[in-house]
Amino acid sequence: MSIPPEIFMLPPHSEATLQQQIQQIVSDAIMSGRCVTGEKMPSSRRLAAQLGVSRITVTLAYTELVSNEYLVSRDRSGYFIADTAPKRPSFREVDKSQSGGVDWDGILARRPQPRQNIARPPNWPDFKYPFIYGQSDPELFDHRNWRDCSLRAVGRRDFDTLTRDHYQRDDPMLIEYILRHILPRRGIRAEPDEILVTMGAQNALWMIAQLLLSEGQKAVVENPCYPGLRQIFDQMGFVASSIDVDEDGLPPDQIPADANLVFTTPSHHCPTNITMPLDRRLAMLKGALRDGYIIVEDDYEFEMSFLSSPAPALKSLDQAGSVIYVGSFSKSVFPGLRLGYVVAARPMIEEMRKLRSVVLRHPPSHIQRTAAYFLSLGHYDAQITRMARSYAKRRAVMEDCIKGFGLTLGTREVHGGSSFWMRAPEGVDTMKLALDLRADSVLIEPGNAFFARRAPDASHYRLAYSSIDSGRIRQGLELVAERLDEGAT
Amino acid sequence: MSIPPEIFMLPPHSEATLQQQIQQIVSDAIMSGRCVTGEKMPSSRRLAAQLGVSRITVTLAYTELVSNEYLVSRDRSGYFIADTAPKRPSFREVDKSQSGGVDWDGILARRPQPRQNIARPPNWPDFKYPFIYGQSDPELFDHRNWRDCSLRAVGRRDFDTLTRDHYQRDDPMLIEYILRHILPRRGIRAEPDEILVTMGAQNALWMIAQLLLSEGQKAVVENPCYPGLRQIFDQMGFVASSIDVDEDGLPPDQIPADANLVFTTPSHHCPTNITMPLDRRLAMLKGALRDGYIIVEDDYEFEMSFLSSPAPALKSLDQAGSVIYVGSFSKSVFPGLRLGYVVAARPMIEEMRKLRSVVLRHPPSHIQRTAAYFLSLGHYDAQITRMARSYAKRRAVMEDCIKGFGLTLGTREVHGGSSFWMRAPEGVDTMKLALDLRADSVLIEPGNAFFARRAPDASHYRLAYSSIDSGRIRQGLELVAERLDEGAT
Repeated sequence: MSIPPEIFMLPPHSEATLQQQIQQIVSDAIMSGRCVTGEKMPSSRRLAAQLGVSRITVTLAYTELVSNEYLVSRDRSGYFIADTAPKRPSFREVDKSQSGGVDWDGILARRPQPRQNIARPPNWPDFKYPFIYGQSDPELFDHRNWRDCSLRAVGRRDFDTLTRDHYQRDDPMLIEYILRHILPRRGIRAEPDEILVTMGAQNALWMIAQLLLSEGQKAVVENPCYPGLRQIFDQMGFVASSIDVDEDGLPPDQIPADANLVFTTPSHHCPTNITMPLDRRLAMLKGALRDGYIIVEDDYEFEMSFLSSPAPALKSLDQAGSVIYVGSFSKSVFPGLRLGYVVAARPMIEEMRKLRSVVLRHPPSHIQRTAAYFLSLGHYDAQITRMARSYAKRRAVMEDCIKGFGLTLGTREVHGGSSFWMRAPEGVDTMKLALDLRADSVLIEPGNAFFARRAPDASHYRLAYSSIDSGRIRQGLELVAERLDEGAT
Repeated sequence: MSIPPEIFMLPPHSEATLQQQIQQIVSDAIMSGRCVTGEKMPSSRRLAAQLGVSRITVTLAYTELVSNEYLVSRDRSGYFIADTAPKRPSFREVDKSQSGGVDWDGILARRPQPRQNIARPPNWPDFKYPFIYGQSDPELFDHRNWRDCSLRAVGRRDFDTLTRDHYQRDDPMLIEYILRHILPRRGIRAEPDEILVTMGAQNALWMIAQLLLSEGQKAVVENPCYPGLRQIFDQMGFVASSIDVDEDGLPPDQIPADANLVFTTPSHHCPTNITMPLDRRLAMLKGALRDGYIIVEDDYEFEMSFLSSPAPALKSLDQAGSVIYVGSFSKSVFPGLRLGYVVAARPMIEEMRKLRSVVLRHPPSHIQRTAAYFLSLGHYDAQITRMARSYAKRRAVMEDCIKGFGLTLGTREVHGGSSFWMRAPEGVDTMKLALDLRADSVLIEPGNAFFARRAPDASHYRLAYSSIDSGRIRQGLELVAERLDEGAT
């Protein structure tokens, strides 16, 4: 006799297609031991009736299950659970979730705790006015071509080479296009063995800190700065010296002579978007040679400059090789991609390659190849152009409203980025402001996360326009202005 | 007048299609400044003639370049370089490769050097008899369905959610299927917050070592063991205690009472493939509670057991939560995938999540979702079944030939894995043997890389059959036997 169709039920809410769902409930029934080898499946007609789906859908699912060797089909007599179907394990399961005994909290207590990142609700897309930073805008992303490139990258020809482990080598196609398409735009020329692909800029900064900082050495960071960088030091149990930026960014004359490593974001300082003037860049390079420190340039959002031509990267002025250059595709393609790169002197790249291999082997080959196609076919450049144009438009609306509603910039005029660094009126706590605004369906980023612990700051906040439609900016900022008026009174 | 078609030449050897190559050379010409805004492109006819391709190919490339805003088309007058095309930077490039001045070798000298991995020529697929381990076999991999899943994962519906940064959360779909499809087969039940996705097993082992080992603590590893694990300690500058395995794997009574962390591969010991008997597993768990050490179980190749049903994972017997379980898809799907997972107590998973976020944020979402589909649609189980069947066949041929040619096993009979651990006759150096065999187009893996530095071993070698067709095994092993006879005489 055959398995009663009643034991099969479709999951209440599933992302999968009906056919997929049927394949899943059948394989689950086998894995869980509810159906065993030799048993006869209900006819497609009866199962279709039970599940309330079309008979063809069930037949298609059965066919797929046969090719996956869960089922066998016997002419005229129907479908049976195959003896090649995975067996349920003979031993009993232990419910780990009930267990205890080991004092994990005690064991882990010694761990240094990295500070919180910028607070952002996971459901941010449900907010009407999301002035949040660094999330991709589905409207601007060239999904069609990314999909096409992803498909190419998983094609047979590429695939056989990509499925292998490459501890040492990055995708030569990606490296070539970074060298030929991206670095030239920053005035940087490098050789293939002077570049390493990383899991985004965060991963690059982490590796650099791991390799170049040891007990008793001095690292310098900008204050305020990218919170992810502070998290790295926290995790290492390392204390970095913070230097306050002024209206021209990091002041080179403030860098202590005994510094070993200096982290900076000259193109657009994070989070103020200030572009460091040329004389400061040259002074920094001079200081690096004089005092023997290494400069880490996070070339943060250079694509989003609205000047006629972006300022050259610090690295492009670096004759001596003091600069380690960090680039990323997270802002310009999408954050979930986790793909960035480092340009540095050969010995440094070699060490990073070794460290990367021990920590994670290498970034997944398919992602590298997909990005390589996206770059090589010009989709990347086209997308940057599109984004820059749309950001420029949003930026104009933002500037207009910021003036109109009497909001205060936290810096002098700046020319790039995808956000404004703002200062709230005396007495306003921007943490509280951000929480209050959530009630109005407005998201802003309180500035405190960017500052050194010794100098907590409640007066600044960031307004990003990379994820909000220009049509919603005015109303969103109006709500910010209203809350600020309440707060100030 | 229009740009002379002569400046365009197709690259000598390119992986790309003709249309892609044309798009590339045009965008390169623009990026390099050889063609500038407003200039007229050669007609499709003339460029087609110059490149020796069909006119339609050029027209298609032009159309794509228009949609990418490199070109604009003016009715009847042709194609022109668009003013939206990316500009060449105005500043000069500095040739970094000529540069010097910073003493990088000095700066990096302090770094501990991780030892070499197993020597494997990058061109191993060109060898006729590759008895090498852990590389995917294109014949066995279900490329069609992987491609299909990859395509689903980059579909619009999934994509918008996947493109976002998830510092904390893994793909819920992947987590669900690991919990429901894979762990039950190992007798493990866990909750979603007791599992973390990692960049392969290497990344998991590295994070565990980072979090649980500090100055003065004691880590125990098996000897011989997985070289990637030793690399982790080398990179940390940490010295682990090696315990020699016997014919039943790691002897629990040899684990020192002051051990903090014990790394083991009970399902199939790496590299000998010995399966640890149940009494030893229970003794280890008892010892963990008595002496308070944590056990890291690398559940290495459990899918490749040829016993009726694989032995339960150590984790499935672990009532107290002393075991951290490490799983990987590298062997069962493909190594380039870089996807693995850890099952452990909540507080440990939380810490690992924080560390992962600082080091690399998260494994790429697209890869997670692709694997989730591959699992959920049953392709994974089907592939395991296929691989196991084919490996069993190859294994039979291997056993037959090993006996026939009088090669010596390095262990007692074992029941799983995708390789044999072998011992060479007295006086044979397996490093030299491996090099000599390359001349015969045979690749074997000398055993030295698996042993602790204090106990160098030249007498063992590994013969893997995961990447060699069963039809070639006999001839390959005959060549090994011949070299051994020479060596022994």
